[in-house]
Amino acid sequence: MDDLSANAPAIPRGFAPAEYAQRLERAQALMGEAGLGALLLTTEPEIRWFTGFLTRFWESPTRPWYLVVPVDSAPVAVIPAIGAPLMARRFGGEIRSWDAPAPEDDGITLLADTLRERVTSGAAIGLPSGHESHLRMPLADLERLRGLLDGRPLRDDAGTLCRLRRVKSAAEIAKIETACGIAGRAFARLGEVAAPGTPLDAVFRGFQRLALDEGADWVPYLAGGAGPDGYADVISPAGPEALNAGDVLMLDTGLVHDGYFCDFDRNVAIGAARPALDAAHRRLVEAVDAGAEAARPGATAAELFHAMARVVGLESAAGAGRLGHGLGMQLTEWPSLAPWDHTVLGPGMVLTLEPWIETAPGKLMVHEECILVRDGAPRFLSPRAAPPLPVIEGPS
Amino acid sequence: MDDLSANAPAIPRGFAPAEYAQRLERAQALMGEAGLGALLLTTEPEIRWFTGFLTRFWESPTRPWYLVVPVDSAPVAVIPAIGAPLMARRFGGEIRSWDAPAPEDDGITLLADTLRERVTSGAAIGLPSGHESHLRMPLADLERLRGLLDGRPLRDDAGTLCRLRRVKSAAEIAKIETACGIAGRAFARLGEVAAPGTPLDAVFRGFQRLALDEGADWVPYLAGGAGPDGYADVISPAGPEALNAGDVLMLDTGLVHDGYFCDFDRNVAIGAARPALDAAHRRLVEAVDAGAEAARPGATAAELFHAMARVVGLESAAGAGRLGHGLGMQLTEWPSLAPWDHTVLGPGMVLTLEPWIETAPGKLMVHEECILVRDGAPRFLSPRAAPPLPVIEGPS
Repeated sequence: MDDLSANAPAIPRGFAPAEYAQRLERAQALMGEAGLGALLLTTEPEIRWFTGFLTRFWESPTRPWYLVVPVDSAPVAVIPAIGAPLMARRFGGEIRSWDAPAPEDDGITLLADTLRERVTSGAAIGLPSGHESHLRMPLADLERLRGLLDGRPLRDDAGTLCRLRRVKSAAEIAKIETACGIAGRAFARLGEVAAPGTPLDAVFRGFQRLALDEGADWVPYLAGGAGPDGYADVISPAGPEALNAGDVLMLDTGLVHDGYFCDFDRNVAIGAARPALDAAHRRLVEAVDAGAEAARPGATAAELFHAMARVVGLESAAGAGRLGHGLGMQLTEWPSLAPWDHTVLGPGMVLTLEPWIETAPGKLMVHEECILVRDGAPRFLSPRAAPPLPVIEGPS
Repeated sequence: MDDLSANAPAIPRGFAPAEYAQRLERAQALMGEAGLGALLLTTEPEIRWFTGFLTRFWESPTRPWYLVVPVDSAPVAVIPAIGAPLMARRFGGEIRSWDAPAPEDDGITLLADTLRERVTSGAAIGLPSGHESHLRMPLADLERLRGLLDGRPLRDDAGTLCRLRRVKSAAEIAKIETACGIAGRAFARLGEVAAPGTPLDAVFRGFQRLALDEGADWVPYLAGGAGPDGYADVISPAGPEALNAGDVLMLDTGLVHDGYFCDFDRNVAIGAARPALDAAHRRLVEAVDAGAEAARPGATAAELFHAMARVVGLESAAGAGRLGHGLGMQLTEWPSLAPWDHTVLGPGMVLTLEPWIETAPGKLMVHEECILVRDGAPRFLSPRAAPPLPVIEGPS
């Protein structure tokens, strides 16, 4: 009954039970290869990937949440009682809960009991500990837990979660594409909220309203900038400075549909497009095209970097950063389109292509699209921008 | 030039340099008492509290960010290069950056060098490790760092960050009150987006649009529920089920103004208020009044729990949970209004009062307001709800 969205009637909310069964099967196979007796997971996307537990309550840092995924039995959620009813609606497995917060023992005894019961003595418990991971529990509680595991060492998950999550299912791809479509429709209406004289913070508020109006569940990420010759960075919040005719305005959004992100931006000229900015935009679109051309199964993330870097003149630049990344349950995921990332691309990986170009000293333009790697040419999940820098005339 | 909001012209954005100087002075005094040579901070609110670094880019989990706060010298930001321009606009101290992401050495050598340079050998480095904390860096990098510190042990911060952050400055309080006012105006317009027949997910989208329209920078948190005899939990996202006449609808929001949250809810009856729900609402308001009456400097968090619990009949109930909490840079902060929390309240603490009452088996109503503890009676920062359950007639 609560599995269909009014705004996206063709795409069911959540996932079929069979999908969770397949995920668990893949996970247990990888855990077996890595010699792990279980995974211990603490973060929102890790727990949601196995259980479907979707709530904005993670915004509260107070309570820890745990999922134990044994190599040879069903996952067990060890969670605060406040989340048990919602978890039970999403997750068919066992739920053990306690009255959190409880600083004296905030689930640690219950978690240790569960691990000792479900993991053979001597077997290692894998905790994601590598690049792009973190541990969402108090560090002191981790040390306490370590002392209660009776010869079950905690060690890195050997990249298991990364390998599982970076290949998306058809149902996951549909959610990301839905999110991209919502953002695309909101970007198409940017002229309703941006014009010469509009303060940038009003543009940001207005765009978020458009995103909700077009069906976003919520808008976790919005950044951007504006200026006559580009913008200084791509992570700043908005100030009250007004847009001027001739400025390029960039908005970069990560909005959410059913727990999945889009992540792409749009550049528009306010009133009229300066030729240098228009030329930069054409070059950026050309770089995205080159990245997409290179995005075939078997290519590496580094090869996509180089394909784009050649077009925008970043091949030899120190500090080029990365020119795109994975995308899904989080705004940014593995891999990184960077010279050091030799991840081999495969069907089902969703990537952003995000080249940038210097437009003036200390100023840049960035363009970003979302693609799906598949056999043959990739599919664009975001509504692909045309080469000319679009112009917003404003309502006047 | 970017320090004033168009929507809140009376409240300057950010904080005066003197406020950061005072924060550092307080921090260094507490670090001295705790015998710490430095603090090492990794999370968004911890780093922002000392530097003013405000960006939604934390939504990306890829890159770690570090702040070193020595006991006897100025803080040093050790951060990804992508954040250096924005950090330099907010923070007067030294910034050391590297081209992140760089999985081979993602800032760890630079961080270790900084700690060895700024912290006397043998002195302990405090890392928030206790209740409600977490470490936002890869666990493997923490172990690597530990090996590079040449006799400077990492240990818990002894509650230093908690003690610093739980007492708010006048400027912080003004930001929280502004956020509360924005939410209050959005709640006052709830009839524009909720009526019999409106799907709950459309209400959620509509409320977020109203919050932005009233001046929210963004809306990190919205939860709620609806039903004829209460709602099942208070953390679920919305489904497409329609509101019915006689339902009570609850929305609980944490929206942000200049990096500071409000956190309160409103209950409304759709079409007409059932007497039992109206009575429950009056009881909840009475409980909030009792909590506010008890909220004097010198009282404990536990005493506020008991004052409210008596009114709603939770005194002896197991699983009562907590009936409110601190609020500020995060949706929920210390202390907890719970029997086990004996934190002594003092002027400048901002709390939510959040009693709940069972309305049917497995159903409840929750009411929440925000208050400022000060000498004498507390000040309500949220626009205080009246006892009768308000009725929304809907546009028809």
